[in-house]
Amino acid sequence: MDTSALDALKLLAGSDLPGLIVVDRHSRPMTILPGTQVLRMAIPRYCIDDPTLARVVDEEHADDFLHDLADRTVEQCLPQQTRELAFVGPEGTVLEIAALMARTRTPLVVVSIGQDMLGAITLDALVDRMLLT
Amino acid sequence: MDTSALDALKLLAGSDLPGLIVVDRHSRPMTILPGTQVLRMAIPRYCIDDPTLARVVDEEHADDFLHDLADRTVEQCLPQQTRELAFVGPEGTVLEIAALMARTRTPLVVVSIGQDMLGAITLDALVDRMLLT
Repeated sequence: MDTSALDALKLLAGSDLPGLIVVDRHSRPMTILPGTQVLRMAIPRYCIDDPTLARVVDEEHADDFLHDLADRTVEQCLPQQTRELAFVGPEGTVLEIAALMARTRTPLVVVSIGQDMLGAITLDALVDRMLLT
Repeated sequence: MDTSALDALKLLAGSDLPGLIVVDRHSRPMTILPGTQVLRMAIPRYCIDDPTLARVVDEEHADDFLHDLADRTVEQCLPQQTRELAFVGPEGTVLEIAALMARTRTPLVVVSIGQDMLGAITLDALVDRMLLT
């Protein structure tokens, strides 16, 4: 939650993951950001809502938005509205996890018991498992 | 459009891509499916809408859904409602593409002129480009 948004973007770029799990100071999972929603933190709201406005910002000024990112934390950039979280218990079935990923449009699911994170499952790993059976 | 949904799922699993570009018989891009929405094709609608139902289908029967997939084409599995497509022209800016990915929640964007596809840009490639500047 208190990582800078710029570091979060770098973490996503340096990993082979389709998104990031956001944790609090006690490493408890708070939410999951698909890659597109990590990217969203780097873009001014008016550009997301209106494609025409994004088009008229020239490349030089576009870089300024990245500099601003270093001053904001992930917590400050999180969406206001709460959405269904892609969290599943250790007893979750393959079909249940697949349905959860499809419904929440999140290619990364947290496996947890209460507030404790046991691990995570990526869409790639899940599909590999489905095709093996 | 006429690839079987099972082959589409295998293609996603075998690629290093975050989604698939769906083309018609003339290789013209029709839509883009993020990985989670390729996965959605493999899951019965009632399981997506209701997590409780997904949970009660046992693993043995879950495999049956995959067999059914071989008999349906991608076209038959596409969502009915039309959404904004993550298509951009060759003059698109980095900021415009980032805003498009964030808004459409699609980590893969088609670069096209009219109906002709020139190429595609992944979220990973875009973020790498943003961080280099």
